Amino acid sequence: MAGALTPQSEDFPRWYQDVVAKAEMADNGPARGTMVIRPYGYGIWELMQSELDRRIKATGAENAYFPLLIPLGYFAREAEHVEGFSPELAVVTHGGGEELAEALVVRPTSETVIGEFMAKWIQSHRDLPLKLNQWANVVRWELRPRLFLRSAEFLWQEGHTAHASHDDALEYLMRIHLEVYNDFLINAMSAPGYLGLKTPRERFAGAINSLTIEGMMRDGKALQMVTSHDLGQNFARVFEIGFQNEDGQSELCHTTSWGASTRLVGGLIMMHGDDQGLVVPPRVAPIQVVVIPVREEPEVLAAAERLVAELTGAGVRAVVDRGRASFGRRVTDWEIKGVPLRIELGARDLAAGQVTLVRRDTSDKLTRPLGGLVGEVTSLLERVQADLLVAAAARRDERTVDVESVEEALEAAQSGFARLPWAVVGEAGEDRLNAGAVSVRCLSRPDGTVPSDVNEPDLLAVVARSY
Amino acid sequence: MAGALTPQSEDFPRWYQDVVAKAEMADNGPARGTMVIRPYGYGIWELMQSELDRRIKATGAENAYFPLLIPLGYFAREAEHVEGFSPELAVVTHGGGEELAEALVVRPTSETVIGEFMAKWIQSHRDLPLKLNQWANVVRWELRPRLFLRSAEFLWQEGHTAHASHDDALEYLMRIHLEVYNDFLINAMSAPGYLGLKTPRERFAGAINSLTIEGMMRDGKALQMVTSHDLGQNFARVFEIGFQNEDGQSELCHTTSWGASTRLVGGLIMMHGDDQGLVVPPRVAPIQVVVIPVREEPEVLAAAERLVAELTGAGVRAVVDRGRASFGRRVTDWEIKGVPLRIELGARDLAAGQVTLVRRDTSDKLTRPLGGLVGEVTSLLERVQADLLVAAAARRDERTVDVESVEEALEAAQSGFARLPWAVVGEAGEDRLNAGAVSVRCLSRPDGTVPSDVNEPDLLAVVARSY
Repeated sequence: MAGALTPQSEDFPRWYQDVVAKAEMADNGPARGTMVIRPYGYGIWELMQSELDRRIKATGAENAYFPLLIPLGYFAREAEHVEGFSPELAVVTHGGGEELAEALVVRPTSETVIGEFMAKWIQSHRDLPLKLNQWANVVRWELRPRLFLRSAEFLWQEGHTAHASHDDALEYLMRIHLEVYNDFLINAMSAPGYLGLKTPRERFAGAINSLTIEGMMRDGKALQMVTSHDLGQNFARVFEIGFQNEDGQSELCHTTSWGASTRLVGGLIMMHGDDQGLVVPPRVAPIQVVVIPVREEPEVLAAAERLVAELTGAGVRAVVDRGRASFGRRVTDWEIKGVPLRIELGARDLAAGQVTLVRRDTSDKLTRPLGGLVGEVTSLLERVQADLLVAAAARRDERTVDVESVEEALEAAQSGFARLPWAVVGEAGEDRLNAGAVSVRCLSRPDGTVPSDVNEPDLLAVVARSY
Repeated sequence: MAGALTPQSEDFPRWYQDVVAKAEMADNGPARGTMVIRPYGYGIWELMQSELDRRIKATGAENAYFPLLIPLGYFAREAEHVEGFSPELAVVTHGGGEELAEALVVRPTSETVIGEFMAKWIQSHRDLPLKLNQWANVVRWELRPRLFLRSAEFLWQEGHTAHASHDDALEYLMRIHLEVYNDFLINAMSAPGYLGLKTPRERFAGAINSLTIEGMMRDGKALQMVTSHDLGQNFARVFEIGFQNEDGQSELCHTTSWGASTRLVGGLIMMHGDDQGLVVPPRVAPIQVVVIPVREEPEVLAAAERLVAELTGAGVRAVVDRGRASFGRRVTDWEIKGVPLRIELGARDLAAGQVTLVRRDTSDKLTRPLGGLVGEVTSLLERVQADLLVAAAARRDERTVDVESVEEALEAAQSGFARLPWAVVGEAGEDRLNAGAVSVRCLSRPDGTVPSDVNEPDLLAVVARSY
């Protein structure tokens, strides 16, 4: 029964935990902070990956794979951590049955190794731009782990590119941010966000600018969905990534980096989910349609199988529920899993040549003739995809308040986002916000677009509590 | 020039190393035995993955993801290694900035964790069969690392399934071995192998039977391409993977496991490559067609771009070579990369409305009209795919000798494979073969099919040196 889930309004973190468990998304792994991603959760991630990967490749980036284990010395290069190991790192000290001469770090990112190889592979301006992407696991020690949101190991993609000019780097970075990330969020995840720049203190270390997309979760908190960094020549300077320009002179490259992780699965749960469970947008739903026979009757089961075969043939991800639990229980279970559309089919429906379609997002029930259902279903899935975006945008707008002062922003951020002139906030205002567990999530232009610089006039600060 | 590669006949391992480097397949990583898979090598792996993944999913298995780091205690469970760490393992002793209470192992396989979670997820016969697959990286310390063939870290898939009966487990295992692995090798990799069972001493520890497909490399040695294991109830016993049967009684499951890794990339190089470099079968070729303008002339370049646009539109992976090196040098470079088809286009060709097509596998040159080339190219790619299989099978058959005694087998295995009655070999014969650095690669029926048992009468032993 639905009562199995803690209501969101009662205890949101508890609701999240319940959904992750009961929708069979993930389990805790045996080592602290690690995560077992179960088939249903992994199915969502696979679809996200394929949607992102297609867009990444369309920008001309190529996938590659760099080693998991990195000599500790690579981290000393840029490290302030002189003694002991950085608390974030998992360190391999033994291999081949003995203690290693130099300890190896389980990569927290591949940045250092990719930097080294970029330096090796790039000689001339003809080798530029070099656009690499990697899909991999990374490990960062976590003191307060939470499935998908903060896990000691997570899956992600990290892109790293090198360019001959800052203009070229910036142009490419904007393509990644808009044509890859924002397009993916809008069109695959139905997840509208606030786009903008991070403030200097929230910026990625070493970046000239960090671009972000901030999504609003259903508890009114922000989740950073993706980030893209303009590293200027800083990274190239450290890793000596240089090239000979057309005049035969040596120059440093301009580099970018950008990433998205399994955190997006957590974002999907918290942006669309409700008290009945998950709500998965059709384009990233491993199961888009479940056909539920009301009772276990041979003709009904046969009709259900035929319907699923037709849907599958038309490219719809559909299954028959052949479970033996009560009809009501099965409906509840599929609601928890957030399958976008369910089709209920009983003996009486079959006799009348009709079925009942139920939308997960709105609970709307539609009675439709069994014949010609495939076209109906595919267009309904498109409708659900679009409506989820509209609903999420409406919630975001409703819970975003325009305010005039830092005090008002602090107040408003208790239940949603606040927006106010960045000029009103400044460094001192950011201190006060941070003291109240609130932060500037991004700086945007009044029309919502991404500024080219944090010093542009008239920027607005979007302010919220965050994950 | 082609002379840049060591000829296979002169020094095969050196040839392999040259090809991996010059075709830009992979580099050594900074930590000993680790590997950087460059975009061209990774592109081949991605296509292999997608071909395998599609077939794995068609058998009903679902992908999931289990943690990289596993408590050391999990390995003690089944370990004979009581003191110190097993030489194969990379061990994390520090995390979160301090020494860990219990060390963590970087997974050499996920077997132990998957076993634990299978035991947790399976309660009743209704939960069976449970069919899981994982795509991931694993680490096994290597004393003599070699890119793709033996690297400390490699990428692979490992499948693990649990069944209510041994018959069901075996039936599924045969589907994996034949419909997934062998079908992939034959139809995607053009890589014919010998199918059979491992002898008891070559069998995976704990398995009742290990199924293998052994490919012949161009130096006459064998490479184990894939393996699939019937674990009977042994694995279920260790991990307590049980279920309630239909009568409400407790039973142990019957399990299987099966895997394929980036080793396949090494197999592809060594099975098809020649003195000019790689030869990549079209279905796993990141670039299937390269269009090479003879000189850098605007009309020729424009025609080349148009041609590639047409080919791409028809689903062919095609690129234009816009490099500035000499025509001959560019041809040689694409030969090293093993692109199946190259199209040469010069101003004179353009004027005559024709192009020259060159097959990488046979060096055959064909002059064809520029119009209607797309259909010609797609059917030619199919032809290349099929011919590569025929050529590999012919080489395999030519270098496989039927012999009568272990002595003759030892002799024949110096340059290829030997085949003789398993009854003639036996345990003692296996000792003598092993002493001569030769092993029984598999036991097959006289008709080449996989026996159900190593004790079946009339089995043949396929014998060779191996990687």
